[in-house]
Amino acid sequence: MEKIKIGIYGYGNLGKGVELALKNNPDMQLVGIFTRRNPTDVYALFNDTQVFSVDDAEKMKDKIDVMILCGGSATDLPEQGPKVCKLFNTVDSFDTHAKIPEYFSKMNSVALESNTLALISCGWDPGLFSLNRSLLESVLPNGNNYVFYGRGLSQGHSDALRRVEGVKNAVQYTVPYGEAVQRVRDGENPNFASVRETMWRECFVVPEDGADKNKIEKEIKEMPNYFEPYNTVVHFISEEELKKNHNTMPHGGFVLRSGNTSENTNQIAEFSLKLDSNPEFTASVLVAYARAIYRMKNQGNTGAITVLDVPVSLLSSKNRDELLKEIL
Amino acid sequence: MEKIKIGIYGYGNLGKGVELALKNNPDMQLVGIFTRRNPTDVYALFNDTQVFSVDDAEKMKDKIDVMILCGGSATDLPEQGPKVCKLFNTVDSFDTHAKIPEYFSKMNSVALESNTLALISCGWDPGLFSLNRSLLESVLPNGNNYVFYGRGLSQGHSDALRRVEGVKNAVQYTVPYGEAVQRVRDGENPNFASVRETMWRECFVVPEDGADKNKIEKEIKEMPNYFEPYNTVVHFISEEELKKNHNTMPHGGFVLRSGNTSENTNQIAEFSLKLDSNPEFTASVLVAYARAIYRMKNQGNTGAITVLDVPVSLLSSKNRDELLKEIL
Repeated sequence: MEKIKIGIYGYGNLGKGVELALKNNPDMQLVGIFTRRNPTDVYALFNDTQVFSVDDAEKMKDKIDVMILCGGSATDLPEQGPKVCKLFNTVDSFDTHAKIPEYFSKMNSVALESNTLALISCGWDPGLFSLNRSLLESVLPNGNNYVFYGRGLSQGHSDALRRVEGVKNAVQYTVPYGEAVQRVRDGENPNFASVRETMWRECFVVPEDGADKNKIEKEIKEMPNYFEPYNTVVHFISEEELKKNHNTMPHGGFVLRSGNTSENTNQIAEFSLKLDSNPEFTASVLVAYARAIYRMKNQGNTGAITVLDVPVSLLSSKNRDELLKEIL
Repeated sequence: MEKIKIGIYGYGNLGKGVELALKNNPDMQLVGIFTRRNPTDVYALFNDTQVFSVDDAEKMKDKIDVMILCGGSATDLPEQGPKVCKLFNTVDSFDTHAKIPEYFSKMNSVALESNTLALISCGWDPGLFSLNRSLLESVLPNGNNYVFYGRGLSQGHSDALRRVEGVKNAVQYTVPYGEAVQRVRDGENPNFASVRETMWRECFVVPEDGADKNKIEKEIKEMPNYFEPYNTVVHFISEEELKKNHNTMPHGGFVLRSGNTSENTNQIAEFSLKLDSNPEFTASVLVAYARAIYRMKNQGNTGAITVLDVPVSLLSSKNRDELLKEIL
């Protein structure tokens, strides 16, 4: 069987995760990593991984079935997405929720024009969580959606901590309140007045030598949007402790739907993730969906789509008979 | 907007659940119930529900978009499925796992011949659990699937209890071992030697007057396949107690996937249901998928399909813009 030929565009944590995930999927083959850096300066995880410059991507148009875009949503993807989907079928993890309609519209028009297929906003949220939100809302139209994040490391909030004066290094964990999750699981259908009731933020901060810790803590707790709306706890630790105990990127969360099918009959459905590594899991989702994109393109589909448009059977390496016998 | 016209074929607990579920979906309309009984002997839940004989179904071929088959899997569906999908697009909950390939093949050939679309084995298992099994296995190919059922009332096991000599009435609950679920959630990736380690069976039995309770209990606990492979607890109660405390049909369960994305990096995903009413929830799933079947038929699809073949966007009453903005 011919393997599905995959390219990785951008090589940070997510790109490395894709490189790892492809090793778990023997029906796919990594053609190479495309980087904006000098390719000879990039060291891939595996010796046999080829590294190219993004400038050489166009020449390899016919050698790659699906390009997985591993850049960030803030500045990389809005520019790279439309550029790359002119040449390749793409999968990306664009996750700026408020800008998804605009990004979809741009990607859709470029992909339709270029006869390519672009899956946007894949991963776990947006991604598998979106899939469950839509599925469960459709099955239980008379109900409420709940989402909780954590316990997990938030890259954006960690970055915000590092911008505070006197902070040398820092990480932030988002932590759901167990009691709030339990109230939903118990079918109470609670109305939470604010996010403060559903999750809190735990910060581990390495101060600069001689920095004023009280001032740092106050500034963090009062930071609008990032920390002010939440209960926030700040721990001061040493650089060694940070390197030793906070060097992985765990994350996770829950999507819950609680709804009535008739008066006094409540039904609760929950999808949850507990991840040792957020980027490796996100990458694994992108790779499974790359298989589906390859197949959907072969079926003649073009334009932009989301995970909601992809039948799950197309993600699987199993054929129809195996799915009927082993999965259904 | 024109409503999707739905028929209910067979009117037991599941059929009643569909009648209720349609009230939660204003874009659908119940044309009527089709029964093998004398229609005048059937009392529907709502006054405005029309009741027809199954013999009149053929005459209403053009008045119904999707017929939801609500018969049982043991004897009803193998006969009714192929018969009804000759005339109508259908959704059914065929759940005899071992016979799904055979049933699929039969339904597929009849539906292809008749230019109809038949969704088989919909509900929660097979159904939403199958969807998650396939999705999560595709995302985490290097891992294990786990499934736990309960706490919930098992109709088949309750029937088996009622066939024991000296038993007047009885219900059986399937109960997962919390410790076993926790081991999976903790990422231990346990290998359970037998089902005895993952769940147990709790029986509430009303004995006939003067029946030998010890003999009943022994016979239950030694019943092959049904109870012998499990730890089984038998409680003897009065008919009044049974009617008062065991008159609903709760159920639920968990599908878990635990897998590694790289050495020592474990990822756990879980889909769980906690249902006050098993038939009402199953019915709600059938109704959401009926919406998708209507749309897929309009797109030109025919033959048999499963939940794995249906994009989630087609289940939703939201349009593309709403999904991009509110769900993704």
